[in-house]
Amino acid sequence: MKKIAVLGSTGSIGVTALKVIHSNPEKYRVIALGAGKNLDLLLKQIDNLRPKAVAVLDEGLASDLKRRLGKAKSPEVTYGNDGFKHLVTLDEVDTVISSMTGAAGLLPTYEAIRSGKQVALANKETIVMAGALVMGEAQKRGVSVLPIDSEHSAILQSLQGHPREDIRRVILTASGGPFRNASLSEMSRMTPAQALDHPNWSMGPKISIDSATMMNKGLEAIEAKWLFDLDMDRITILIHPQSIVHSMVEYKDGAIIAQLGIPDMTIPISYALSFPHHDENRLPPLELDEVGSLCFEKPDMKRFRCLHLALQAAKTGGTMPAVLNGANETAVGSFLDGTITFLEIPDIIEKTMKKHRPYDIDSIETVLEADAWARRTAQSFLGR
Amino acid sequence: MKKIAVLGSTGSIGVTALKVIHSNPEKYRVIALGAGKNLDLLLKQIDNLRPKAVAVLDEGLASDLKRRLGKAKSPEVTYGNDGFKHLVTLDEVDTVISSMTGAAGLLPTYEAIRSGKQVALANKETIVMAGALVMGEAQKRGVSVLPIDSEHSAILQSLQGHPREDIRRVILTASGGPFRNASLSEMSRMTPAQALDHPNWSMGPKISIDSATMMNKGLEAIEAKWLFDLDMDRITILIHPQSIVHSMVEYKDGAIIAQLGIPDMTIPISYALSFPHHDENRLPPLELDEVGSLCFEKPDMKRFRCLHLALQAAKTGGTMPAVLNGANETAVGSFLDGTITFLEIPDIIEKTMKKHRPYDIDSIETVLEADAWARRTAQSFLGR
Repeated sequence: MKKIAVLGSTGSIGVTALKVIHSNPEKYRVIALGAGKNLDLLLKQIDNLRPKAVAVLDEGLASDLKRRLGKAKSPEVTYGNDGFKHLVTLDEVDTVISSMTGAAGLLPTYEAIRSGKQVALANKETIVMAGALVMGEAQKRGVSVLPIDSEHSAILQSLQGHPREDIRRVILTASGGPFRNASLSEMSRMTPAQALDHPNWSMGPKISIDSATMMNKGLEAIEAKWLFDLDMDRITILIHPQSIVHSMVEYKDGAIIAQLGIPDMTIPISYALSFPHHDENRLPPLELDEVGSLCFEKPDMKRFRCLHLALQAAKTGGTMPAVLNGANETAVGSFLDGTITFLEIPDIIEKTMKKHRPYDIDSIETVLEADAWARRTAQSFLGR
Repeated sequence: MKKIAVLGSTGSIGVTALKVIHSNPEKYRVIALGAGKNLDLLLKQIDNLRPKAVAVLDEGLASDLKRRLGKAKSPEVTYGNDGFKHLVTLDEVDTVISSMTGAAGLLPTYEAIRSGKQVALANKETIVMAGALVMGEAQKRGVSVLPIDSEHSAILQSLQGHPREDIRRVILTASGGPFRNASLSEMSRMTPAQALDHPNWSMGPKISIDSATMMNKGLEAIEAKWLFDLDMDRITILIHPQSIVHSMVEYKDGAIIAQLGIPDMTIPISYALSFPHHDENRLPPLELDEVGSLCFEKPDMKRFRCLHLALQAAKTGGTMPAVLNGANETAVGSFLDGTITFLEIPDIIEKTMKKHRPYDIDSIETVLEADAWARRTAQSFLGR
């Protein structure tokens, strides 16, 4: 029986994770739920799953939640970073599903690892910002960090049973997002609504924009570097519009092992929880004769500058990936609220990166400092 | 250092296997070579590899070979089934590459297993005819039987690191051969030359015809059943004209693990010898963005009756697969020498199968008896 804390329980990944947990009551039990602002959904989840503790974004939301919960059989209610930290360090919890969006996931995920919990990780920012620190800590504590996004789960699955030293390269596939075939001038006019309309996956707003800019794939490449201990030059990105091949590993003899599946997050979430087992679910099987043909193409770094910037940041190392990520979150937020255009996202990130003098990461404070600097600096470029 | 006997050394697989061995002199050494009739090539191989013993098809060929070898530093020369048996039971040999064509591979492969040698198996007839017996013997002796055809190697690779009990089905891919899109009336007029012209693979004549009739895929399905201990209803066949995805395994969660590569037998041969390692080679990498799109379709059992007959034989069990195989070898031989038309191949096989009363296999003699009966019976249908 795995006893689980779900951070980001009201987000897209969190909701699917709770479904997986709910359909395997003999294997998984929810101990704690961490959410942001969506009290309506959180209340339903509390009612359904009866967690011992919950945490929300801030004190105001916590008060609201307490009031709406009433008194009978209520879970403990906490809030903010301290609240999330409390959830992941509960004695009863052995596994943390980290599916908060953005940099907010870093601290609680790090705390979960430090207190020896197994981590199922959807929050790629944790690894992008502080890969060396987080994975070093995980190794020290003998904690496994298993990915629950489809690409890294595919890599993990393609690595099973094949000797690590025989890896030639990892091939990360990318759908190319909604603007795969758009020209630069078309991209310059794209609205948030268009960018949010992803062809294959239904996801939250931040990650949908990251998919449209392909920053998402850049962040995933950095994540792959840390999760699987690879040099960046062993990571290749291929556009695969059908999102059926979720990623691949090429070995030294030229053999490529790939993981394929329907685009449903249930599969990677379930695999991270049941690893190395593949638990039965109710999804329809992938019928390859029905999906049409599978295509692959090289990404265009000129149109998808965010991808290029991410790979550059990874090569620079130190605080640069955290700065890339902070600037990206600021820029994406500004695009979503209409302050900047789509193509200004990479502009803002590039300007911020150019202004940054990277330094080594030796603590979580260093990371948070670089992140804060990046957000301030990116913000300063918005003020026009 | 693996000390290897190569049976079928002058055939297509044998030649590629010798290249793999030759380019890894620190890992592999040839101890013995078994060939059929191609003395010219065998003489070159002897000159190159200096085996301790060789065997050829019959006494006449053995005398020829001895004469042409002269006396200096010659290997021991034997012939026929006794000769092949002698090679695979040599004390110095620890690994046998079984790449003879057709039913002739059965006896020496069985003897190799009985004397505790590891077997790298290209000769699918061994398993098709006597799967229960051969795999039972292998299990008893703790001997591994590793496939060196691309499909079963792909399955083996896709099974590594994933729990057996989580398998939902194995998806065997098939190129569909040169007549994939041919109508029945076109197929009725196909000549041996057209049937030998395979789109993706360069192979010997027997296996090329089996590919054109898709009997090859039926035999592979039976082989997969025995090699991986699967029920026939867990084996699905999909046409994949590009021959890039060499086969797949679907797990209970819907995840499909696939092995991809360029169509070059070096990869499966090398994997069987270096298992579970992927040894470097000089092949060009598979660049998926250059291969165009990958397609999959269901096979048409009406046009490819040989495939249907093979699956039927597997379900019947006992001696029926051996009879299928014997009748097929007879029919293919008759097609190649112009005695029958392409579509008469399944006719002959079906008639032979209909006449057969299957019985259990309890010894290699039972298998050979069924095989001989099938050949006689198939032959009797040719006499017009």
